[in-house]
Amino acid sequence: MEKPYVLRSDDGGVATLTLNRGERFNPLSEEMLAELLAAFKAIAQDEAVRVVVLAAAGKAFCAGHDLKQMRATPEAAYYQKLFQQCSKLMLLMQQMPQPVIARVQGLATAAGCQLVAMCDLAVAAVDARFAVSGVNVGLFCSTPAVALSRNVSRKQAVEMLLTGDFIDAQTALQRGLVNRVVPQDALDAEIAGLTASILAKPAVAIAMGKQLFYKQIEMGIDAAYQLAGQTMACNMMDDAAQEGVQAFIEKRAPSWKV
Amino acid sequence: MEKPYVLRSDDGGVATLTLNRGERFNPLSEEMLAELLAAFKAIAQDEAVRVVVLAAAGKAFCAGHDLKQMRATPEAAYYQKLFQQCSKLMLLMQQMPQPVIARVQGLATAAGCQLVAMCDLAVAAVDARFAVSGVNVGLFCSTPAVALSRNVSRKQAVEMLLTGDFIDAQTALQRGLVNRVVPQDALDAEIAGLTASILAKPAVAIAMGKQLFYKQIEMGIDAAYQLAGQTMACNMMDDAAQEGVQAFIEKRAPSWKV
Amino acid sequence: MEKPYVLRSDDGGVATLTLNRGERFNPLSEEMLAELLAAFKAIAQDEAVRVVVLAAAGKAFCAGHDLKQMRATPEAAYYQKLFQQCSKLMLLMQQMPQPVIARVQGLATAAGCQLVAMCDLAVAAVDARFAVSGVNVGLFCSTPAVALSRNVSRKQAVEMLLTGDFIDAQTALQRGLVNRVVPQDALDAEIAGLTASILAKPAVAIAMGKQLFYKQIEMGIDAAYQLAGQTMACNMMDDAAQEGVQAFIEKRAPSWKV
Repeated sequence: MEKPYVLRSDDGGVATLTLNRGERFNPLSEEMLAELLAAFKAIAQDEAVRVVVLAAAGKAFCAGHDLKQMRATPEAAYYQKLFQQCSKLMLLMQQMPQPVIARVQGLATAAGCQLVAMCDLAVAAVDARFAVSGVNVGLFCSTPAVALSRNVSRKQAVEMLLTGDFIDAQTALQRGLVNRVVPQDALDAEIAGLTASILAKPAVAIAMGKQLFYKQIEMGIDAAYQLAGQTMACNMMDDAAQEGVQAFIEKRAPSWKV
Repeated sequence: MEKPYVLRSDDGGVATLTLNRGERFNPLSEEMLAELLAAFKAIAQDEAVRVVVLAAAGKAFCAGHDLKQMRATPEAAYYQKLFQQCSKLMLLMQQMPQPVIARVQGLATAAGCQLVAMCDLAVAAVDARFAVSGVNVGLFCSTPAVALSRNVSRKQAVEMLLTGDFIDAQTALQRGLVNRVVPQDALDAEIAGLTASILAKPAVAIAMGKQLFYKQIEMGIDAAYQLAGQTMACNMMDDAAQEGVQAFIEKRAPSWKV
Repeated sequence: MEKPYVLRSDDGGVATLTLNRGERFNPLSEEMLAELLAAFKAIAQDEAVRVVVLAAAGKAFCAGHDLKQMRATPEAAYYQKLFQQCSKLMLLMQQMPQPVIARVQGLATAAGCQLVAMCDLAVAAVDARFAVSGVNVGLFCSTPAVALSRNVSRKQAVEMLLTGDFIDAQTALQRGLVNRVVPQDALDAEIAGLTASILAKPAVAIAMGKQLFYKQIEMGIDAAYQLAGQTMACNMMDDAAQEGVQAFIEKRAPSWKV
């Protein structure tokens, strides 16, 4: 019996998904994609989960698609379906109600870099390196480009895509691809700080806000404000917000069941 | 009789609007919003005004909406109208012909941070701090997110929105939320430099350019170029541009009534 | 007989176009625009060219439109046509299959700064300076704004457009307007590194990728992923990608005719 491709562990509202093929740099094979998609689907429906950490076993975060597996089936329909499946996963991470935080060590290349870019937040170890290196084997990182170009500026994205070159963690931080860079042994503590901060807020506010954020960013500013105003009015009618504001007025901590 | 919520003073083409509830950190109450909106509407029609400075009395720039007032009327229709009014103000600042410069000291939180983000330019004191902290009371900063996500990169915006944490002035500068950071006692001089620069240019070029900028940024690049080309041709037919270009050719200062 | 406005030299798949009015800071006169557009059109059809370097003779890269020529024909229809022609050139640089790299020394102002912004990549000498300075003569840089606002953050772009002030090369690098800054005498070596990197990849992957990049960036993320997935599947069916992936699996260099 094969070991699982993705491990899930839950602790106090935090679900940690771990890519579990560390010895192969966690390639996004059909199997890995299927298990990852299933895991995110389950979490999206699971009200006990408030925040997700996407981690990886071994020295690297993720080296992208499984090239060996791809090479074995040189059929357009197969590739179409593979990339569709992968895009479905990427979009789900953005559409699900809970924030997703990437925990990145070692290299994150091609669709591995895309995973980082699609997470809401990302914390990287100082040794982490990022590339969209498909072009090195003649396969331009088109789907990773969708995510990367929504994280970093245009010329910086184009340079990475055309050259396939790595950027280091500090550069990724300056450019906006990751939120924090810390020593490898401080990764868990740094992420615990972020998850604790999110856990301290009402789930409904986080879910409404996350959904609104990615919707409004694709709209013209008038429409964006209209949707955001409706969302915020709706959020304000929620019991948690009423209690939060009341507590603020009374200078006390809110009494929430978060 | 209550003191005004917003003060206006005019000096040589520069209108300074000052949020005037410094003792309460200038919350955007109904009254404040109404006076601010009226003041901006009047300026938008006032050809004597060439540039606006949005300043604030007291230790802080603006702490966002008036939570006490909001809590007192827990009705969806009331909140809808409140956010609509606020969005109207924010959009007017962008649509009016004159550039608006934020003058920021102390904290700018929630809709206060949004005000800074919606200004064309912003100068901050070194002690200024920025947050979209509504999530701390269970109210995700959805409308501020519209402005913030159009100023800073995606993950940086999401982190601020999910955690409610502050960033300091230097970080705001690096990320593009403000244009300049100076010591508190140099704020006025720094802003005077910017207003002098704008006053030295023809009003019609500034007005056409500002309007074009925010329109084209929401368009596909082909349509953007078409509109920009028409705008620039129209601008070039203006007397001030003809004189400016002629003066440039003759290596003399333009003779403008700006 | 007049000397050409644009020089072209080809070397091993790299076409270098040189703006050839260095003594006048290479203004984009009607003649310069016509020759530049013709040169790019020819290259876009030329399969022997894999990458383009846009360089400039003399001390400056390009000072923008030819103001003297523009002043001589104060007619709306003339200006309309001029900006249309210029926009056509700018869009062609983005739509053509080969990457275009700007080689920038001295100043790049107005439409000269726009040229840099529209190139896929840009390398600047340490002494390079950038401005969208039309506003100084009463002509707001509306068409350059289209390019600039797609390279740097909003407030940074607005500040440059309203003030007409220069930014230096290091600032341009930090903000994303250029990819690399090197000493003047290292410009050619730095660009040779980039062209070599691009030459080492299959032309079809680069062409597909470049086209996809600029299309998807204007789409909503769902549509972007759909197009990117199709593009990548199509790319993967190409012989060069199949060989590249096979070589990767066999841990050998790909045998490409690039």
